[in-house]
Amino acid sequence: MKTILVLGAGLSASSMIRYLLERSAHENWQVRIVDHDLEVVKRKINGFERGVALSFNALDASERRPEIENADLVISMLPARFHPEVARDCIDLKTHLITPSYISPEMAALDQEAKDAGILIMNEIGVDPGIDHMSAMKIVHDIQGRGGKIVSFKSYTGGLIAPESDNNPWNYKFTWNPRNVVLAGQGGATSFVQNGQYKYIPYNRLFKHLDTLSVEGYGDFTGYANRNSLSYRETYGLEDIPTIFRGTLRRPGFCEAWNVFIELGMTDDMYHMYNAAELTPRSFLNSYLPYHPTKSAEEKFREFLREDRMHLYDRFEWLGLFKDEPLIDLENATPAQVLQKILVDKLSLQEGDKDMIVMIHEFEYKLNGSSFRIQSNMVNIGEDQVYTSMSNTVGLPVAICAKMMLNNNIQELGVTLPIQPEIYNPILEELATFDISFVERETELNPV
Amino acid sequence: MKTILVLGAGLSASSMIRYLLERSAHENWQVRIVDHDLEVVKRKINGFERGVALSFNALDASERRPEIENADLVISMLPARFHPEVARDCIDLKTHLITPSYISPEMAALDQEAKDAGILIMNEIGVDPGIDHMSAMKIVHDIQGRGGKIVSFKSYTGGLIAPESDNNPWNYKFTWNPRNVVLAGQGGATSFVQNGQYKYIPYNRLFKHLDTLSVEGYGDFTGYANRNSLSYRETYGLEDIPTIFRGTLRRPGFCEAWNVFIELGMTDDMYHMYNAAELTPRSFLNSYLPYHPTKSAEEKFREFLREDRMHLYDRFEWLGLFKDEPLIDLENATPAQVLQKILVDKLSLQEGDKDMIVMIHEFEYKLNGSSFRIQSNMVNIGEDQVYTSMSNTVGLPVAICAKMMLNNNIQELGVTLPIQPEIYNPILEELATFDISFVERETELNPV
Repeated sequence: MKTILVLGAGLSASSMIRYLLERSAHENWQVRIVDHDLEVVKRKINGFERGVALSFNALDASERRPEIENADLVISMLPARFHPEVARDCIDLKTHLITPSYISPEMAALDQEAKDAGILIMNEIGVDPGIDHMSAMKIVHDIQGRGGKIVSFKSYTGGLIAPESDNNPWNYKFTWNPRNVVLAGQGGATSFVQNGQYKYIPYNRLFKHLDTLSVEGYGDFTGYANRNSLSYRETYGLEDIPTIFRGTLRRPGFCEAWNVFIELGMTDDMYHMYNAAELTPRSFLNSYLPYHPTKSAEEKFREFLREDRMHLYDRFEWLGLFKDEPLIDLENATPAQVLQKILVDKLSLQEGDKDMIVMIHEFEYKLNGSSFRIQSNMVNIGEDQVYTSMSNTVGLPVAICAKMMLNNNIQELGVTLPIQPEIYNPILEELATFDISFVERETELNPV
Repeated sequence: MKTILVLGAGLSASSMIRYLLERSAHENWQVRIVDHDLEVVKRKINGFERGVALSFNALDASERRPEIENADLVISMLPARFHPEVARDCIDLKTHLITPSYISPEMAALDQEAKDAGILIMNEIGVDPGIDHMSAMKIVHDIQGRGGKIVSFKSYTGGLIAPESDNNPWNYKFTWNPRNVVLAGQGGATSFVQNGQYKYIPYNRLFKHLDTLSVEGYGDFTGYANRNSLSYRETYGLEDIPTIFRGTLRRPGFCEAWNVFIELGMTDDMYHMYNAAELTPRSFLNSYLPYHPTKSAEEKFREFLREDRMHLYDRFEWLGLFKDEPLIDLENATPAQVLQKILVDKLSLQEGDKDMIVMIHEFEYKLNGSSFRIQSNMVNIGEDQVYTSMSNTVGLPVAICAKMMLNNNIQELGVTLPIQPEIYNPILEELATFDISFVERETELNPV
């Protein structure tokens, strides 16, 4: 019998845990699941005999290490900053590890030690990062295998609301951590390369510099730039690619409206508002509009919007931004925290709502003197509010990778991510059986 | 004989040192001046017998403490972050201290210890902070003494180029640390109170939210908001004032044009540019403009500016922003560092140039059912490039205060700033003999 230790049983772990437990008898696995909330674990184990619910502080090494020592594989769904210390325990105790998170510099530095210990530390194997790497690398390797030269790669992902649950003027609901949505694009350079030129976009223009995309059967999307597209050149072995861009998808109009919050100053998380405890949405708005002895907040906001953006006005009214009812529990809050409170009240998932993950890759390449474009799209709808699309697309690649590792189907050692065909091919094939699959369309570009 | 120890003999210390040395024989002072550059100190001592040039690392306590022990008064012109540790030495060794810098929380915490040691630690006694406090408090106390109630206080200061040296389209030259100018307004909330309402301005609107002011004989200025106006309510004892605002002065058009740099993203100091070492002003500009296969940087920049700001175009052309000649020594630079390099090349003081400090206070108050406005302006022009207006207005209040302290004319102890009449009255009177004086104009406001 093999033992899997799962650290953290939060939202994004649901589908991964279900996958492992459903196969636990057949594969002869014991699945030991730790969370600070024992009830959450029990609910996710759902009666499966091979599941063991544990409640201890997974962040405490002395509690965690005996469990790691007894396990054949650790899956860490803890916040990303804790992964390096879990990884050091795994190296000490010679236990393989999977995390869905980006490889931090601290994690990358453990590569040789992990190899010396004979263990594999697989990272970036959720949806983004994860499915994006695997699906893109499959196309990269295919083009390169045919002798083609890739000249442009653009990739977009969005966590959105499913069309059947899309019933508000923002065409958006929070299907993931709202704080990350409110702070998106802050705290770093947004950079990419376009036709060989480095380009940088400051936060104040991020939600204005938009690409329009569409997916057959799912309508239009807009994409804004992700913070750093450039590191992907090295990861994907495309060091000299003239154009590389990564973006986040929203429905049309969302970004233009979101930019109004940025322009007002409402997404700032760097200071505490003097009067946060007494704020209403209306007085919060007024804090960012000029003083006027007689004009209403509505009038001043219309002037701020200007005629060319007046079509966005209804979105803000719908959010209740002009209401003068007290917001609660906001003592000492930052503007971003106040805004989050206003948004969460209106943009949270309702009973029966389903989420949706959309991923779009666009490649351009040259082969035998001709130019071609490949568009590859994935749309996945969640099952319900536990087995969301976010949970499925993050958790299933992790779980499938776990199965492969326990069955000794991966020979690689050290700190890595899923960019090798031996790893991504079987995972992408099995993901397709869960309706997580890409529709690819290739066209020849007209010569200029 | 009394001994004064001056730590740091940089630009802003020149006038203070001259004042002390010129009076050293008459007052029976020895002035011991420390800087890492002995030649700088010797030049500033300029043959005065009572001046002693010292060169050691003033940041090293073991080198500094014997000098502090032997001194009657220490004047620290070191970077503000070092003042608390100098203050702790002064407390230990029972030596009075003056610094021109803001009272940091660490400095404020030393108040009781300074009182217990029987010493005075005078801070915020340069120009801004310093002359602003003293001149404003004189008016505040005067209005309050007559029974008036202050309802609005706005105060603006600018370090600018003197009219006779103002010969470029920006109407600006660097008369102070260029880095602080490039980063102005970043890294904190800009907040104030207007008619009882808290107002916040994000960085992306800071240089658009402008007040227009004028000073007779000196023309028009625009003022943009300083980071935090609100702490002045407590300092000035105006806790309930409905309107308080502090701003920085520039010549008209400067702020509108500066905002173009912000909008482009060129003032960001949080990331390093990939290709900084190879940048030209033109490629730097292109990094922030959208890619286009045929349009020139000039065309794209004009589109970015838009018709309503086209009158600013010449300022950017004059700066050389479209030139394709390499910038040097910028390896790994941030955008703010690249921009600073471009600006310093064009906006530095030329031989014979003089600087100018402008300060404008605007008070509104009610008295006996009527409303009044007081405008109080100070304009000071520098003597030359050593005894600049910046050096005079920072250094002379420090030096006059030093004289008062050595003559036992100040009874206060502890960590303080110059907001008491016993302190500001004699200093303001003596400053007037150096042509640093305020012109006050009072008008009755028409009842609404």
